[in-house]
Amino acid sequence: MLGNNQKRMFKLIHKDKNSKARLGKLITAHGEIDTPSFMPVGTQGTVKTLSPQDLRECRASIILSNAYHLFLRPGTEVIKKAGGLHAFMSWSGPILTDSGGYQIFSLALLRKINDQGVEFQSHIDGLKHFLTPEDVIQIQKDFGSDIIMPLDECVHYPCSKDYASCAMKRTVDWAKRSKEIHNNQSLLFGIIQGATYEDLRQSCSEQLTEIGFDGYAIGGVSVGEPKNLSYNIVNFTLEYLPQDKPHYLMGVGVPEDIIKAVELGIDMFDCVVPTRYGRNGTAFTSEGKLTIRNSPYIEDFSPLDKKCSCYTCKNFSRAYLRHLFNTDEILGLRLVSLHNIHFYLELMRNARDAIAQDRFMEFKKEFLNDYNKGI
Amino acid sequence: MLGNNQKRMFKLIHKDKNSKARLGKLITAHGEIDTPSFMPVGTQGTVKTLSPQDLRECRASIILSNAYHLFLRPGTEVIKKAGGLHAFMSWSGPILTDSGGYQIFSLALLRKINDQGVEFQSHIDGLKHFLTPEDVIQIQKDFGSDIIMPLDECVHYPCSKDYASCAMKRTVDWAKRSKEIHNNQSLLFGIIQGATYEDLRQSCSEQLTEIGFDGYAIGGVSVGEPKNLSYNIVNFTLEYLPQDKPHYLMGVGVPEDIIKAVELGIDMFDCVVPTRYGRNGTAFTSEGKLTIRNSPYIEDFSPLDKKCSCYTCKNFSRAYLRHLFNTDEILGLRLVSLHNIHFYLELMRNARDAIAQDRFMEFKKEFLNDYNKGI
Repeated sequence: MLGNNQKRMFKLIHKDKNSKARLGKLITAHGEIDTPSFMPVGTQGTVKTLSPQDLRECRASIILSNAYHLFLRPGTEVIKKAGGLHAFMSWSGPILTDSGGYQIFSLALLRKINDQGVEFQSHIDGLKHFLTPEDVIQIQKDFGSDIIMPLDECVHYPCSKDYASCAMKRTVDWAKRSKEIHNNQSLLFGIIQGATYEDLRQSCSEQLTEIGFDGYAIGGVSVGEPKNLSYNIVNFTLEYLPQDKPHYLMGVGVPEDIIKAVELGIDMFDCVVPTRYGRNGTAFTSEGKLTIRNSPYIEDFSPLDKKCSCYTCKNFSRAYLRHLFNTDEILGLRLVSLHNIHFYLELMRNARDAIAQDRFMEFKKEFLNDYNKGI
Repeated sequence: MLGNNQKRMFKLIHKDKNSKARLGKLITAHGEIDTPSFMPVGTQGTVKTLSPQDLRECRASIILSNAYHLFLRPGTEVIKKAGGLHAFMSWSGPILTDSGGYQIFSLALLRKINDQGVEFQSHIDGLKHFLTPEDVIQIQKDFGSDIIMPLDECVHYPCSKDYASCAMKRTVDWAKRSKEIHNNQSLLFGIIQGATYEDLRQSCSEQLTEIGFDGYAIGGVSVGEPKNLSYNIVNFTLEYLPQDKPHYLMGVGVPEDIIKAVELGIDMFDCVVPTRYGRNGTAFTSEGKLTIRNSPYIEDFSPLDKKCSCYTCKNFSRAYLRHLFNTDEILGLRLVSLHNIHFYLELMRNARDAIAQDRFMEFKKEFLNDYNKGI
């Protein structure tokens, strides 16, 4: 029972003394999330290769799924009839669903955008669909998502200021319409667009804050721009966002980028990197990345990471994992994905501990020192 | 501590009153196996898509691996240096390793067999290898296998009596040489060959019994012959085998074949079917086979098998599993493989219960009645 706290959906617990890093707690219908938090990506209603049991063993507190993908397959009706996405995929913890705006603008064919909504062809079968921002909210309500993202227009890099401005204005308009049909059974976040232009990001932030959302996401980052520019965008955008709401950096990133963004004040992350790299046989370790197919591991009977306590590291050697990849055995994809997700979640746990003790900058330094040393 | 039982490696506990079905217990260095028993196949040191933890949750008491495959990749030295196959693959229960005779005669290229051994080219990289029966025992000793299978010559169907006779004699000769270099740290089984010819099977059985093995396997069955002929071979071969040793029918089969063979007196089975079918999306259920990709399952929110208590059936619907296969998600292959292995192991548990209560024939009738009804 949350009692008086019930309406306070985000609680800012502590700010690090030597950086902008924040410790917080986000309360959803399916559980609480300690922030900064990383959300494993389950685009199609499954975090690739992993079962919900695996995710629980990694102590994942929230996962992300994707409205665009699930709308196409298996379709909203199937998930609604299953009793929602939690029941369908057998995950009882919180779920954030991305609207799929990014996917519509990157995967789908023959898009036609107008202020009303977006017409596109499915990247799977070419069938035409038209979705309004209201449709996209309704889909996520039907899924029973804990955190709903509105439809936005995500632009590529580089993007002219005129186009970026148009897309930002449309994003604000759609966010407003989304808010109007949203109810209080879930959290609704706003997405800040505006490409690389500070004044557009500022305007978008101010307008969305005026409308009022349960959290604010920075979209349109990590879309091809140089890394320093990404950090700049994050840094100046955060200046214009309310401090008492969670800040979510969409689609970022590798461990060093996440640590940097935590330092700047980001609370939530998602990225396909740990599972995608896992399926390619690249493991993240405290001493950097490791490509398991490489020949030095043929007779290396140590775990992927001596400091790691995941199921993979407790039970299997680099030599065995290399053998699995070398013989195209599916268990290999799963064991390295599991390790990588555990690595990311452990990184966030350690970051939270460090923030609580006002030693985030030391933690960052120590982490990067080991991580950049290489294996 | 086994005490006085230590040397009695197989204990025949009970014979069904109305069939030749037997209840037994096989004692190995890594644990006891209640028979009749099914061994999940882990050809390359992994039961495809499943972790050792999954296998333990299905209550697998023994798994099978393959000396030929592991000799080629990762190589005997790697496994020896890892501390044996149990340590390498992190499976602490019993392991039976097949010699790979069958694989050399079905997968490998350009074989040259003589009484000394077999020369072949790897099916992976074409490299030439020569293995004697003694080499094959040594490889399995290096793996630390609990049950070792000698090199044999498995012939195709149909096979002339002359050739079958030659191959059988060579198999007996190789078995004898295998016995000579075997020690007592593992169990050594003999493999009965002789194709479809009863007198050859009889002769092979008698000669191998004379040499004396810890168990007897029937090889060369399910190599393309009609099913009734397979049953005939099993039936007449078992007549010539010692009753106080375990009987292992290699590479068989679908559930109805296993039940039939248990009725005839077989104690041990292995087969790739549950995992191979699982990866193709075919599930075994108490009401027959189910092809999960089929459209009737789009909105079917029941489990694969209402009577099943596996992780898959307790947590996921047919609709969700269909979605996973439909979107090429690896979790689908794993969840249906897991269910199929659980189904096979549960079938064996139920068969053992029925034998203990002298109602194996009723059990068989009930099982087949439901199973053949179809979904």
